Amino acid sequence: MLEQIVLNQKASKAEYDEKVEDFERRLGELQRQARDLQIPIVIVFEGWDAAGKGTLINRLMQALDPRGFSVYPIRASTEEEAHRPFLWRFWTKTPERGRIAIFDRSWYGRVLTERVDKLIRKKSWQASYEQIRSFERQLADDGAVLIKFFLHISKKEQKKRFLELEANASMSWKVTKQDWRHHRQYEKYTRAIEDMLAQTDTAFAPWTIVESHDRRFATLKVFAATIRVLEERVRGAQSTKEPEHRTDNLPGEEFPTTSLLETVDLSRTLSRPSYERKLDSYQARVRELEHQIYLRRIPVLVVYEGWDAAGKGGNIRRLTKGMDPRGYEVIPVGAPNDVEKSHHYLWRFWNRLPKAGHITVFDRSWYGRVLVERVEQFCSAEEWKRAYREINEMEEHLVSFGAVLVKFWLQIDEQEQLKRFNEREATDWKQWKITPDDWRNRDKWCLYKPAVEEMLGRTSTSYAPWTIVESNCKLYARIKTLETVIKSIEARLEAR
Amino acid sequence: MLEQIVLNQKASKAEYDEKVEDFERRLGELQRQARDLQIPIVIVFEGWDAAGKGTLINRLMQALDPRGFSVYPIRASTEEEAHRPFLWRFWTKTPERGRIAIFDRSWYGRVLTERVDKLIRKKSWQASYEQIRSFERQLADDGAVLIKFFLHISKKEQKKRFLELEANASMSWKVTKQDWRHHRQYEKYTRAIEDMLAQTDTAFAPWTIVESHDRRFATLKVFAATIRVLEERVRGAQSTKEPEHRTDNLPGEEFPTTSLLETVDLSRTLSRPSYERKLDSYQARVRELEHQIYLRRIPVLVVYEGWDAAGKGGNIRRLTKGMDPRGYEVIPVGAPNDVEKSHHYLWRFWNRLPKAGHITVFDRSWYGRVLVERVEQFCSAEEWKRAYREINEMEEHLVSFGAVLVKFWLQIDEQEQLKRFNEREATDWKQWKITPDDWRNRDKWCLYKPAVEEMLGRTSTSYAPWTIVESNCKLYARIKTLETVIKSIEARLEAR
Repeated sequence: MLEQIVLNQKASKAEYDEKVEDFERRLGELQRQARDLQIPIVIVFEGWDAAGKGTLINRLMQALDPRGFSVYPIRASTEEEAHRPFLWRFWTKTPERGRIAIFDRSWYGRVLTERVDKLIRKKSWQASYEQIRSFERQLADDGAVLIKFFLHISKKEQKKRFLELEANASMSWKVTKQDWRHHRQYEKYTRAIEDMLAQTDTAFAPWTIVESHDRRFATLKVFAATIRVLEERVRGAQSTKEPEHRTDNLPGEEFPTTSLLETVDLSRTLSRPSYERKLDSYQARVRELEHQIYLRRIPVLVVYEGWDAAGKGGNIRRLTKGMDPRGYEVIPVGAPNDVEKSHHYLWRFWNRLPKAGHITVFDRSWYGRVLVERVEQFCSAEEWKRAYREINEMEEHLVSFGAVLVKFWLQIDEQEQLKRFNEREATDWKQWKITPDDWRNRDKWCLYKPAVEEMLGRTSTSYAPWTIVESNCKLYARIKTLETVIKSIEARLEAR
Repeated sequence: MLEQIVLNQKASKAEYDEKVEDFERRLGELQRQARDLQIPIVIVFEGWDAAGKGTLINRLMQALDPRGFSVYPIRASTEEEAHRPFLWRFWTKTPERGRIAIFDRSWYGRVLTERVDKLIRKKSWQASYEQIRSFERQLADDGAVLIKFFLHISKKEQKKRFLELEANASMSWKVTKQDWRHHRQYEKYTRAIEDMLAQTDTAFAPWTIVESHDRRFATLKVFAATIRVLEERVRGAQSTKEPEHRTDNLPGEEFPTTSLLETVDLSRTLSRPSYERKLDSYQARVRELEHQIYLRRIPVLVVYEGWDAAGKGGNIRRLTKGMDPRGYEVIPVGAPNDVEKSHHYLWRFWNRLPKAGHITVFDRSWYGRVLVERVEQFCSAEEWKRAYREINEMEEHLVSFGAVLVKFWLQIDEQEQLKRFNEREATDWKQWKITPDDWRNRDKWCLYKPAVEEMLGRTSTSYAPWTIVESNCKLYARIKTLETVIKSIEARLEAR
C-alpha cells in the first residue's frame, strides 16, 4: 500500500511562493472562525525519521495566532506517565474548545516504535487500536476536528538525509544509533505503518499521507488539507441546517423499565458492637492493602454514587480513616469549573486518575453525566446516551491497565432520606449539610430513579460491576463498602 | 534550643476524648467560614522520621470537608521537578482562595534532608532561606494563612519507634537504611533544624513545635493551634475594621519622574537588504543555540512587553521561525481565567516556566500586574506596589537556578501607533487585530507611560535587565531582539 505512493511529487518555487501566502492567510482566518465557533482542533504529525516533521510543524505554527494553539512533542514516557494508563498523557493534552493542539508524534507511537522495538507485548499494542479508535471517536463526537498526517519518504531518501545530516557538524547529533536501527528495519516498520493506517483511518479521524521528498510539495499539501477540513467544518457549523445525527454510537432501544432498586433489601442492619469490632480490623486491613498495592504499583479507584444523604461522606471517612495519607486522595466532584467546561466532560477525570500504587476515592464521579446532567438537562439526550459507551470504554481502559475499580451505589429509600434531611435541619452544626438544592433534588426522585436504573444496567460490566450498598443502616453500609474494597483488592493481588 | 523542649507531655484518654470531638466540630466550622471568606490556607508538617506525621495528618483530614482540601506528600524530586527551579513544585501546589493545602514534608526538605545528606551545595541551601521567606511572605501578603508544624521526638524515642516498627512484620518496610542513617545523624540534624527554625520563624509564617512523644497530646496541640490561628484570621476578616497595612514590603517613596522613554532614539532604521541578510544568519544561529541550551539543560525565558501595535507578534514570529518546535513554546498572556484568578497572580506564570533546556517566549507576562492591572485598577495600589519586589524575587530565583532571562520593551511613539491602527483598519485581513479596546488603551497613553517608566526603573536588575527596543522601524526591532537573545544565550554558555 505504501509502496504504491508516488513519492517524487514536487512543487516549483514559483508555485510555492504563489500559494503559500494565500494559504497562510486563509488558515489564520479559519483559526479565528474555529475559535469563535468553539471548535477544538487536534492535528497529529507522524512520519519517518528525517521526513521533516519539525520543519513542517514550525511552518504551520508561523501561520497561526500563538494565543490559540499548543504544540506537544511526544517522546518516550516519563516515569509519571508510565504510572498511568497509556491514553492518560494524551487525554490531559486535548484542547479546550476553540483551541488547536498539535502533536509531534502521538498516541500512535504505541503501534509504531513501541511495537517495532518490542517495548510492549503483542496483546497490548493490538488492544491499543480499539483504545485509539475509541479515544478519537469520543473527541469527534464531542465536536473536535481531527487531522492526522503521515509524512512518507522512501528508504533511499531517508538514508540520503541521514548521511547529509551526519556530514554537517552542527546537525550530526540529530542522527542517533536508534535512527539507523529503525532505518534498517524500514520494511518491518512499513508493515506496522500499513497496519496502523488500515486500523485507524476512520471517517471521524482520517489519515492524510504526505509525500515528503520535496519540502515545498509537502508544505503545500499539509496546508491545503488542513484548510479543506477546517473550511468544511466551519461551513457546517455556520449553516442553519440541523447537523446529521450519528446514531451508531447511541444505545439502540429504550431501556427496559427495571425495578432493580425496588428489590434491594433495605432492612439489613448491623449492631453497634459487631460494627465496632469489624471496623477496627477492616481499617487495619485496608492500611496493609494500601501498602501492598503500593509495592505492586496497582492503582485503585473507588467510586461513590448515591442519593443525597445516603451517607457517602461518613462512609468515605471510615474507609480512609486507617490509610496513610501519602497513598490516597479523596476527590469530591461538583459542578465543573470554566476550564473543565471547555473540555470533553471526561477530561477532568482523566486528569485526576490515580498514579499506579495509589488510591483515589471519587465522591461522585463521571456518572454525573448520566445522572444530574441528564435529569437537569445540562447536556443533550444524545450526549448522555452516548456516555454509557464512553464510560464503559474508559473503565475498560483503566482495568486493562491493571487498575482495581470499585463502584458503589448507596441506596436508601425516600422515607429514610426525609428523616435524615429533617435531622440535619434540626442539628445546629449539621445545618450546612442541607441546602434548598437538596430539597429540590428530592422532589425529582421520580426523574432520578429511572436514570439510576439505566445507569446501573448499562454500566455494570464484567470488568467494572456496580455494588449496591443497602444504606438505611449506616453501620451496615460502612462495613459492606469496607468489605467490598478489601475483597476487590485481594482478588487483584492474587490474580497476578 | 530543641533540647530545652519538654517532650514528655501527655494527654489522658479522658482529656482527649472530651476535647477532640469539640475540636473537630470547630475546625469543620472554621473551614466553611474560611471558604466563604475565600481565605487560602497552607498547613506544613515537618518533623523527625517516625514522629507520627502520617497519623496526625490523617486525623486532621477526618475533621475536614474533603471538597475543600488537598494533601501533597513531598518526596525526592522527580525528573520533571529537578528541571525546574526549586520552588516550582510548591508554587504550582499553592491552594485556591478558600481551599486548604496540607504538605506532608515541604520546601523545607531543602534545608533538612538535602542539606544534611549533602545533596546540594552549601551556597544553595543557604540561598534557599531567602527564597523560602520570600515565597511565604508573598503568599501571606496575598491573604494566605500559613501554619507550620514541626513534630519533635528525642533520639531515644525515635530509636524505640524504629525498633518497634521493625519488630512488626507488616510495618518493618517503613524503616529504611536511610532512616537509620539519619538517626545516627540526629545531632547534625538538630543543628539544621534549629537553624531552619531560627531563619524561617516569621510573623507571617510562624512555626509551632509539637511535642510528639504522646500521640494524644500531639493531636490536641495540632488541632488547638490550627483552630487558634484560623479563628483569629476569620475574626479579623469579619470585622469591619480596616486591616493593618504592612508597609514594609512597599517601595518607600514616589518614583522619581524619569523620562527614559523620551530619550529612546526612535529614528533608528535598517534597510531591507541588510535586514534579510542578517535575518537568515541570525535565525540559523538561534537554532544552533536552541540545541546548545538543550544539551546544557539551560532554561531560557524571553519576555515581550510593549505598546499595542509595537510589533510583538511579528517580532516573535521572526525569533522563532528557525527554531525546532520541540524546544520552544510561545505563551500569549491575556486576562486570567477563573481558576487563575483564584490563585496568587504569579501562580499561572510559575505553572508555565520552561523546563531546563527549553525556551519559553512570553507574549506579555507577569508585568501585566504593574501595567494593565495598575492602570485599569484591577488590583489595589498596595498590590501593584508590592509586585515590583515580588517580581524581582521571582526573577532572581529563576536566574540563580541558571535560567537566561531576556526582557524586551518594544517602544514606539504615539504617531507611529496611530499610523499602524489606521493601517490595520484599512486592511481587510488585518481588521481582527484592532479592537475598540485598543483605541481605549490608546487614550490612556498618559496613564500607561508613568507605569512603564516605573516598571523599567524598578525591575531593571543586574540579573534581569530590560532591553528597550526601538520599534518604529520593524526591521530594526526584529534584528535587535534576535541579536539580544543570541548574545544573552552566548554569554550564559560561556559563563559556566
